[in-house]
Amino acid sequence: MFKGVQLDKISSKHLYIQLYSQLKSLIEKGEVKTHTKLPSIRKFAEELGVNNVTVVNAYNLLAEEEIVYKKVGSGTFVAPKVEFKEDIYLDEEVYIDEDTKFIEERKESGQEGIINFATAAPTPDLFPISPFKRLINKVLERDGGYAFGYQKSQGYLALRKSISKYINRYQIEADVNEIQIISGAQQGIDILAKTFLDYGDTVFVEQPTYPGAISVFKSRNANITEIPINQNGIDLKLLESELKKEKPKFIYLMPNFQNPTGYSYSQEKKERILELAQKYDLLIIEDDCLSDLNYGESNNMALKAMDEDERVIYIKSFSKIFMPGLRLAFLIIPECHFNDILLSKYMSDIFTDGLIQRVLDLYFREELWEKQLNKLKETYQQRYQIMITVLNEYLPQECDFVAPEGGLNIWLELPQGLTANELYDKAFAAGINIAPGTVFYHNQPQTNKVRLSIAAVTEREIKEGIKKLGDVINKELSNSNQDWDNRWMPLV
Amino acid sequence: MFKGVQLDKISSKHLYIQLYSQLKSLIEKGEVKTHTKLPSIRKFAEELGVNNVTVVNAYNLLAEEEIVYKKVGSGTFVAPKVEFKEDIYLDEEVYIDEDTKFIEERKESGQEGIINFATAAPTPDLFPISPFKRLINKVLERDGGYAFGYQKSQGYLALRKSISKYINRYQIEADVNEIQIISGAQQGIDILAKTFLDYGDTVFVEQPTYPGAISVFKSRNANITEIPINQNGIDLKLLESELKKEKPKFIYLMPNFQNPTGYSYSQEKKERILELAQKYDLLIIEDDCLSDLNYGESNNMALKAMDEDERVIYIKSFSKIFMPGLRLAFLIIPECHFNDILLSKYMSDIFTDGLIQRVLDLYFREELWEKQLNKLKETYQQRYQIMITVLNEYLPQECDFVAPEGGLNIWLELPQGLTANELYDKAFAAGINIAPGTVFYHNQPQTNKVRLSIAAVTEREIKEGIKKLGDVINKELSNSNQDWDNRWMPLV
Repeated sequence: MFKGVQLDKISSKHLYIQLYSQLKSLIEKGEVKTHTKLPSIRKFAEELGVNNVTVVNAYNLLAEEEIVYKKVGSGTFVAPKVEFKEDIYLDEEVYIDEDTKFIEERKESGQEGIINFATAAPTPDLFPISPFKRLINKVLERDGGYAFGYQKSQGYLALRKSISKYINRYQIEADVNEIQIISGAQQGIDILAKTFLDYGDTVFVEQPTYPGAISVFKSRNANITEIPINQNGIDLKLLESELKKEKPKFIYLMPNFQNPTGYSYSQEKKERILELAQKYDLLIIEDDCLSDLNYGESNNMALKAMDEDERVIYIKSFSKIFMPGLRLAFLIIPECHFNDILLSKYMSDIFTDGLIQRVLDLYFREELWEKQLNKLKETYQQRYQIMITVLNEYLPQECDFVAPEGGLNIWLELPQGLTANELYDKAFAAGINIAPGTVFYHNQPQTNKVRLSIAAVTEREIKEGIKKLGDVINKELSNSNQDWDNRWMPLV
Repeated sequence: MFKGVQLDKISSKHLYIQLYSQLKSLIEKGEVKTHTKLPSIRKFAEELGVNNVTVVNAYNLLAEEEIVYKKVGSGTFVAPKVEFKEDIYLDEEVYIDEDTKFIEERKESGQEGIINFATAAPTPDLFPISPFKRLINKVLERDGGYAFGYQKSQGYLALRKSISKYINRYQIEADVNEIQIISGAQQGIDILAKTFLDYGDTVFVEQPTYPGAISVFKSRNANITEIPINQNGIDLKLLESELKKEKPKFIYLMPNFQNPTGYSYSQEKKERILELAQKYDLLIIEDDCLSDLNYGESNNMALKAMDEDERVIYIKSFSKIFMPGLRLAFLIIPECHFNDILLSKYMSDIFTDGLIQRVLDLYFREELWEKQLNKLKETYQQRYQIMITVLNEYLPQECDFVAPEGGLNIWLELPQGLTANELYDKAFAAGINIAPGTVFYHNQPQTNKVRLSIAAVTEREIKEGIKKLGDVINKELSNSNQDWDNRWMPLV
C-alpha cells in the first residue's frame, strides 16, 4: 500500500516533506488503516533511494502531528484520531545515520521485541532515581539560584574533592587541582583532541577501539595508527616499532575491560607501556569507563595509579556504570597541561551543568555511590555468568571468545567466512541487535568480530537472544558450507 | 609577611606545591594571623614571577584543606581552625588565565565590593528557582529513569516542539526537524566550526565580536577576516570587497544587540546581507542571545526570519536571558546540513542533559517563559535607563557611546590617548570591573573601547560604579593632558 509513494528528487521541495505529505494524504484518505505499521526506515529508504534520515524526518513530522505513533522496539504505526498522548514524550531512542558508524538502538526498524546486545549503556530500571530526586531537592534548597549560575570551567570544587576521595580507593592520587570536570567522556576525548591535535598529527589507538574516539581524531584531520590488541593488551612489539618510526601526539588506550573487546592489560604490560612512554616521551590517554565492574580477582589497576612520571591523562565516565543521562565525567591531568585543557573545555561548552555536579557531590558524600555500584555489579555479574554459559551452550564451536573478568562486553569471533555485517543483518531480522565489529576499526570494511553487551538485556533475554543468535549462525554456517564446496574448491 | 616566599623554578617539585607548602607553613607557625588577607593572585604571581594559575592552584589547595577561605568579591583569607563550613561550596566564581582572553569575574583579586560591569550574565537573584524546582519534580514523577537515560542527539522531541512554537513568535518558522538542541551557544559555535572549518579555511566575523567564537575559529586553524561593524551593522562595502577576494566557509554575525557593541543592523542592511549571501553563495551563522531584550520600538527581526534561501544557521542561547547554568541552547539548521551537524553534536558530547530538556519543555508549555522574560525586561530596562542617565552625567564629554535599543551591553569609546587596558587596571584598583575592548578583537593589542554590562549590577551599583569610573577617567585625562605637552609636542 506504500508502493505508490514517489519522490521527485529534482523538485525544490525537501524530500522528507514530499514523503511526509504523501504518507499523510494516504492515511487521511483512509488508504492505510489505523494501527498499520509503516515500512521500516531502512527498507523504505532503500526502496525510495533516499537517505535513512529523510524517512526518519518524515516519520517524525507525522508523529509530531500525531498522525502516526511510535512504539519502542516495534516501529511506527498509523495513529487513531486520538487526544494528546503523553507517552510519546518518553519515546527517546537515539537515531544516527549508519554512515556515521555509531552504534545506536535500531528500535525504529519495526521488529517486535528486539533483544538488544548492541548497546553498552544501562537501562532506566537500574538507575537510582529516588535518592537522586531527594538530592536534587536538597541542592535546590541549599544553593538556590547558585546551582543555575555560571560555574567554574574546571568544575565544582566540592565535587572535585569528592572525586579525589573516590578515586583514591582505586590507588589513584589526584588532588582537586588535577581534576577537570567534563560533560561526559565523549567531550573528554573531544577536548583532548582540541588540545593536542593539529592538522596532520598522528595518534595511536588500539585496534579495535571506541568509534567515538576515531571520529573525533578524524575530524581533527589526524593520522590514525591502529595497533592490535590481544587478550592481555596491546601488541608491545608493534607499538615500539611504530614509536621508532613516528612520535604520535598521544596514544589512546583502554587498559581495563577494553571497549569493544573486554580484554584487560596484564600488570606487566601496563608497566612496560609506562616504560615505553618514558623512553619515547609518549603521552597516554587512558579511558576508563568500566574498571569498577570487576567480577574476578584480576588486578585491574589503572595506568594512572602507576603513573609516576605524569605521562597519563585519565578519563573516567559515569555513564556506563551509573546513568548515561548525567553527562558528567572527569579528567585527571598532569599539571603541565592544566591551562591548555581548561581553555579547550571553555571553548567546548564553558562549563558543565552546576546542578548535576552538586547532586553528584552529595551522592558521593552520602556514600550512595558504593551502594549503587554493588547493586549494579551484582546485576551485571549475574547477567555475565548467564551470558558465558549460554554462549558456550548455544553457539557453534567455530565461534570463539575470551571470557573477560569484568565489564559489559564480549568480543565474539565468528567462523571464517561469516562477516560481522552479514550476521548483523541476519540477526536483526531474527530480532537480535548486535554491534558489528566493523564500526570499531578505522579502516576495515570487513571483519568477523561482533560485540555483545549485557547492559540492556534481562537474564531471560540473554538466554533467548543467544539461542536465537546461535540458530542464525548455525544456519549461515550450513549455507556457507554448501557454498564452500562451490566457491573454495581447490583448483588443483 | 609574604616576602619570605621563594620558589625554586629548577626544582622538580611543582611550583604551586612549593607555594602551597610555604604558605601552609607560614600559617601553621602562626606567622600569618587568622583572617589575614592573602596577596591578590595577580600581584602575587607578578612578584613571584609565575603564572597566575600557579597562585590560584596553591590557594585552591589551601582552601581544599580549609587552611584558607575565600570570600566572594573580597579575596582569600587565613581561616580560623573551624569545622566544615558549607558556605565555601557556594564559592563558584570562574577563573581563567588572562592569556586566554576570556572575560571572567576577577573577584579573587581581593577588592572589597567590586562592582561588576564586566559580565553579561544574569545573577542568581533573577532566576525563577521555585517554578523550576516544581517542574523538576514533575518531570521526575512523570518520566522517572527516562530523564537520565540516553537521549536523542538531536534533542528531546517535545522540547523541540515547544521551541518551534516559541520561535514562531519571532516570525521564525522552524519545524522540529530543523531544530538541534545543544549544550549552550558556545557548544553551538564549536559544533559549527567542527562541521564547516578545515585547516586554513577562512571565516568572516564582525569586528569587534564575541571572543569565545574567535578562540574556536583559531583552534580550527581558520583564517579570520574581521569586518568592522558600525552603529547600524556591518560595513557592507568592506564585506562585499572581501567576498570578491575570497569565499569564506561562513560569516559569523550578531545582527541584534551585538556583543560587545549593542549595535543592531538596520532592516535594510539585513536585507542586503541576505542578497549578498545569495550572490556570493555565503553561509551565515546568526548568533542571537539578546534579541528578546528589546526596550525600544526597533524592529529586531532575526535574519533567520527573513531567510527564504536557507542560507542562515541560527544559534539561540537561553543563558543570557534566563539561567546560564542551564547549558541549553538550540540551532535552526537548513536541511542540507542536518547530517553533518548531527554528527558534530554526537562527537562533542553525544547528547544534551535529558532532565533539563524536559524541564525546559514544561517551562514553555506552562507559559512561564513569557512571565519570566517580562520580569527580566522590566528589571534590565530600568537598569539600562539609569545606566544611560549616569553615563551622560558622570563621564567626561570626551567619552562617546551609542545608546542601544536593547540588550545588556554598552560599548564605550574612551578619549584618545586612554587605552582600554589602562582603564581596566585603574578602574579595577578603584573597585570597578569592566571588559576591556581588546578581548573582542582578533588581532589588536590596543583599543580605546570598553564594554559595560548591566547584567550583574544593581541600580545602586550602577550609579555608584559609573560615578567612580567617571572619576577614574577624569583623573587619567588630566594626567594625560599633562603628559601630552611633553610627549606629543610637535618637533617643528
